[in-house]
Amino acid sequence: MCRWVAYSGQPIFLGQLVADPEHSLIHQSRNAEEAKVGINGDGFGLGWYGERDEPGLYRETLPAWSDDNLRHIARQVRSRLFFAHVRASTGTATSRANCHPFAHGRWLFMHNGQIGGWSRLRRAVEARIPDALYACRTGTTDSEAMFLMTLGQGGEADPVGAMTGTLSALRALMAEAGIDEPLRVTAALSDGSRLYAFRYASDGRPPSLYWRQTASAIEIVSEPVDRHRDEWHAVPDRSALVCCARCACEVVPLAVLEPSRVEAA
Amino acid sequence: MCRWVAYSGQPIFLGQLVADPEHSLIHQSRNAEEAKVGINGDGFGLGWYGERDEPGLYRETLPAWSDDNLRHIARQVRSRLFFAHVRASTGTATSRANCHPFAHGRWLFMHNGQIGGWSRLRRAVEARIPDALYACRTGTTDSEAMFLMTLGQGGEADPVGAMTGTLSALRALMAEAGIDEPLRVTAALSDGSRLYAFRYASDGRPPSLYWRQTASAIEIVSEPVDRHRDEWHAVPDRSALVCCARCACEVVPLAVLEPSRVEAA
Amino acid sequence: MCRWVAYSGQPIFLGQLVADPEHSLIHQSRNAEEAKVGINGDGFGLGWYGERDEPGLYRETLPAWSDDNLRHIARQVRSRLFFAHVRASTGTATSRANCHPFAHGRWLFMHNGQIGGWSRLRRAVEARIPDALYACRTGTTDSEAMFLMTLGQGGEADPVGAMTGTLSALRALMAEAGIDEPLRVTAALSDGSRLYAFRYASDGRPPSLYWRQTASAIEIVSEPVDRHRDEWHAVPDRSALVCCARCACEVVPLAVLEPSRVEAA
Amino acid sequence: MCRWVAYSGQPIFLGQLVADPEHSLIHQSRNAEEAKVGINGDGFGLGWYGERDEPGLYRETLPAWSDDNLRHIARQVRSRLFFAHVRASTGTATSRANCHPFAHGRWLFMHNGQIGGWSRLRRAVEARIPDALYACRTGTTDSEAMFLMTLGQGGEADPVGAMTGTLSALRALMAEAGIDEPLRVTAALSDGSRLYAFRYASDGRPPSLYWRQTASAIEIVSEPVDRHRDEWHAVPDRSALVCCARCACEVVPLAVLEPSRVEAA
Repeated sequence: MCRWVAYSGQPIFLGQLVADPEHSLIHQSRNAEEAKVGINGDGFGLGWYGERDEPGLYRETLPAWSDDNLRHIARQVRSRLFFAHVRASTGTATSRANCHPFAHGRWLFMHNGQIGGWSRLRRAVEARIPDALYACRTGTTDSEAMFLMTLGQGGEADPVGAMTGTLSALRALMAEAGIDEPLRVTAALSDGSRLYAFRYASDGRPPSLYWRQTASAIEIVSEPVDRHRDEWHAVPDRSALVCCARCACEVVPLAVLEPSRVEAA
Repeated sequence: MCRWVAYSGQPIFLGQLVADPEHSLIHQSRNAEEAKVGINGDGFGLGWYGERDEPGLYRETLPAWSDDNLRHIARQVRSRLFFAHVRASTGTATSRANCHPFAHGRWLFMHNGQIGGWSRLRRAVEARIPDALYACRTGTTDSEAMFLMTLGQGGEADPVGAMTGTLSALRALMAEAGIDEPLRVTAALSDGSRLYAFRYASDGRPPSLYWRQTASAIEIVSEPVDRHRDEWHAVPDRSALVCCARCACEVVPLAVLEPSRVEAA
Repeated sequence: MCRWVAYSGQPIFLGQLVADPEHSLIHQSRNAEEAKVGINGDGFGLGWYGERDEPGLYRETLPAWSDDNLRHIARQVRSRLFFAHVRASTGTATSRANCHPFAHGRWLFMHNGQIGGWSRLRRAVEARIPDALYACRTGTTDSEAMFLMTLGQGGEADPVGAMTGTLSALRALMAEAGIDEPLRVTAALSDGSRLYAFRYASDGRPPSLYWRQTASAIEIVSEPVDRHRDEWHAVPDRSALVCCARCACEVVPLAVLEPSRVEAA
Repeated sequence: MCRWVAYSGQPIFLGQLVADPEHSLIHQSRNAEEAKVGINGDGFGLGWYGERDEPGLYRETLPAWSDDNLRHIARQVRSRLFFAHVRASTGTATSRANCHPFAHGRWLFMHNGQIGGWSRLRRAVEARIPDALYACRTGTTDSEAMFLMTLGQGGEADPVGAMTGTLSALRALMAEAGIDEPLRVTAALSDGSRLYAFRYASDGRPPSLYWRQTASAIEIVSEPVDRHRDEWHAVPDRSALVCCARCACEVVPLAVLEPSRVEAA
């Protein structure tokens, strides 16, 4: 389990979400309140859109709370759309390649949750990644695989449809493999223009996910970064939040095919 | 604040204290129970005596819980006398040079606690380190300074006397600088043969420190590594524990000169 | 391209090959003389057999020349059979998981060379790794894949036969994919008892590999660590060197099936 | 010895000096041509001015050539004034705190060269750093000490005068200590507005230093980053180069007091 924040709106310094608030993401790295574990110290990452089409990445294996480079970058870099993530490994190694966000071309992705029985499923899931994208797999996490799989089934054209497809495929593979552990996902995806967030759990217990929309920005977070709880809305389970820079966010249901329905068909 | 273990006795694998017990040092790195903070994730270190006169060191900035190298070394290396330490920084940087233990010649030292007002005192404390030893200072911690200062005032010949002198000098410097914050120390020192532990606090609230002696070994720990609480004895405040390989440990009072007494004199 | 050393014989400190000689492995990390590049600064690793059946590993992304932990471990750890490797990446990331040696159970493997066209072949090569072993793949190198593939085709029972099979399979896959770049391999493999080294190139230009046998030990190295050139023998191209602790080493031809011969058949 | 680049002018991406040119700073990290050693692999650093008064820093112990974060930051961050440095240690540890540039308030400093006999001089040099600045010393290099010493003697008001004072003081301390090794310095200093470069050697053999001024910018480099050798001018020995954003650079002599002259006085 991990914690993350995503921002889209009027350009702000990354630190305004990552470092400055009372319950900033760096604060959450040692004091997460709505996660199974309070410590998210297995590396972290930043992904931000600046003047280039493709995002910048800064990922490191130190805990977010002890990295001076992070403090500097968060204080200096201003962005209209960025992701930040602190990691609590569910088994895979602490390496930069396993830190979120993941980038491919102009796309950025990060995830909090887990694919139950990952070590048994890994191979089958990787087989769903198209050849051209497989060369971009540099780590061993379920999250990176989920990202490449989603891009591979049309994620660039239809992110919500592709993620729905990924989740349905994962559920089918888990059923085939007889895995009882749940699939739990809160993820963010962007092409630098639109911003998508997803919340889903096969057992009705998804990781926490909140969003807030102001006149100038949309913020999506694992945990609210301040105490204005009335401003934050939970993203409903089995839903996507679809946002663009100058429009109201929209909550869309995720029509994930569950294996039992498949059998019934 | 940090957590540490020291061992002297029949050679065992480092992992037998560091990794295997229910509340091993690695477990304490995320779940310390008797410290102000539960997380000791700002690096760690091992120091062990093998076939050489001088000890080996392995120090790393990753948290102890996520370092595969630590797991391997703890599983492979057997030693008759070793130190292990997980660090929670009290302000200085997360760097290998600031990780404990510190070594000089055949001497090894580690520390849990803090010198109140360190950033203001640093210069005066460093001035007490003899020239020949100052060249060995590679980090910026109060702990390393305390070690070199102790060696510098005869620590090799009379460790307890020298540590008493160091603590007295620190108290005097703190008083001079008008520092109200306390001096709190639990430290271990060894030359590869004898093992010394120290517990002291200027305000009567020293960090926790326990020891256990069996037929084959002496173990000194910030927190007991198992639930046999009756086997573990607290080291008294303002005391040194003096141990050698084949003798009973002895508790010796630390006659630290307190500034008020100095004034009274 | 990389540089490595392997040792089997009377227990010595790792440093006696890794750090002390005039042209030690650490010296080679900045001054390799028989490799395409003189710098091998993309991480390094040690693998050694001690009292356990399975080997210990120490792998790190810093250059070998600047790692104090390496100096300490090389000075303290004594072993009867060990591997050491300094890495010059041929494209994959500088991460611990991509550093050699690789371990699985009691087996240890390291490699210098490359599979031509690796990024195009990776997927097909990984498909040859049996499911049970695939879970152990933690990096993205061709070397680790070659190791798991070799174990997967009976490497534990017949290392020379399995490595011959791996090389033949790689040559076939390369031919199928229309890859013209060569396959060049110098590798070491051990189960903690026997020691195997392999030298092969599809284009007749294998990386350098030497061995020396004394009364007490066998040393196999990418480059001789001292200037006694007459003591060092080149391992012939397309050969394995098979060694055990108390027997003379034997040079065995590697009957790799070349695609053209396959076609001719 | 190290290599560095400094830039002031119309905002450009850091990569335009650090990564893109034929003989970029990253290229120099493995292939320096005008330094005693060709490898500058003991860490690196970036310092840049953006929207804040104080500069951002990114420093890392990996070699510049293998750090993905560096590639990303160099590609994303645009700055009107920045420093970049690749390090070849002259003895002190490979740690972030020992990587250049160093920052204090709005000031940035980096250095290539060395203070002869540093380990013997360190203490005396540190004693010249004022108390208030000493708290900012986080590493052990001669370079950081030189920076804080220069700030301490009025560097903010008169950088050239203060650096002259620092060099004179160092020469005096070296003479007192009977050190025959030379003092060699090429350094850059900035407050985010003006840019200063210094070249000095006590033995007439300063490290290489070049500058180029175009309509839009001034570039100062250890080695020219391209093959237009006629555009690059060597900074003369015992000189400062004083530049501001919209004026022509000026070469100013450095009137360093040499100990012999002092004695003669």
